Amino acid sequence: MTAAQPLDVQMMQRALAIAADAARAGEIPVGAVVYRGEEILGEGGNRREIDDDPTAHAEVVAMRQAGRALGRWRLHDCAMAVTLEPCPMCAGAMVNARLGRVIWGADDAKAGACKSLYHIHDDPRLNHRLIGLGGVLADESIALLQAFFKTRRGR
Amino acid sequence: MTAAQPLDVQMMQRALAIAADAARAGEIPVGAVVYRGEEILGEGGNRREIDDDPTAHAEVVAMRQAGRALGRWRLHDCAMAVTLEPCPMCAGAMVNARLGRVIWGADDAKAGACKSLYHIHDDPRLNHRLIGLGGVLADESIALLQAFFKTRRGR
Repeated sequence: MTAAQPLDVQMMQRALAIAADAARAGEIPVGAVVYRGEEILGEGGNRREIDDDPTAHAEVVAMRQAGRALGRWRLHDCAMAVTLEPCPMCAGAMVNARLGRVIWGADDAKAGACKSLYHIHDDPRLNHRLIGLGGVLADESIALLQAFFKTRRGR
Repeated sequence: MTAAQPLDVQMMQRALAIAADAARAGEIPVGAVVYRGEEILGEGGNRREIDDDPTAHAEVVAMRQAGRALGRWRLHDCAMAVTLEPCPMCAGAMVNARLGRVIWGADDAKAGACKSLYHIHDDPRLNHRLIGLGGVLADESIALLQAFFKTRRGR
């Protein structure tokens, strides 16, 4: 299964709503949802500024929550929808978590690690590879990011 | 400054003690210390099993703690000593944190992202590069890891 399913699109819509919340909190608008079937196990937006935490990207926040919900760090039976292509940290975390699939929205030419700069999620040298699919509701994600940075520049 | 200084070696000794504690707790023995001058701002061992957290590598634990201690996610004025070459997640987290320097012990041929498989800490395409130096007290780190996996296989 490599194409986005209706459930993936639905989860991406939830991730976009979380990203919009992050922007209102002054964080770069990225949101992520970890799910198993229709069940959401973890979700979150960027919390880097709020938490003074360099690792608090949306994906890390969502995967940590999913691990707590399941009582295990292995997320092999889960998928994640995230509004922006994961960076090296987040792509590495997905591999460490043995995540099953990742669906992302906009590509990130400057830091993307699933297509743009690296293919960390699908590196045969690492001990886990996962299915990746980008471009899902990408326009909505780009619109959120552009609006956020336009407002910032205006200050 | 690219060679290990006496302070770096001292911090690595602390990281090795933390790694030994992690082994006793049933975690793969890796330890990390974030410091600014002689001040330790964050430290931790692997907590993946204890916390059901796929992101709880020693480096992430130590950097999160340092961010909380400083009240900011930027760790540009800090260094980190870690007993094993950082994986893609941790190397990406170091870049995201704008960490100043990383000193590691043993190389990790299977997942190392600062020398073995990638050079994420020093990639001119990313928005931060940091000084990296490996091989500091590497034998002590390897001894801890080998003893841990030998015990595990014996079970």
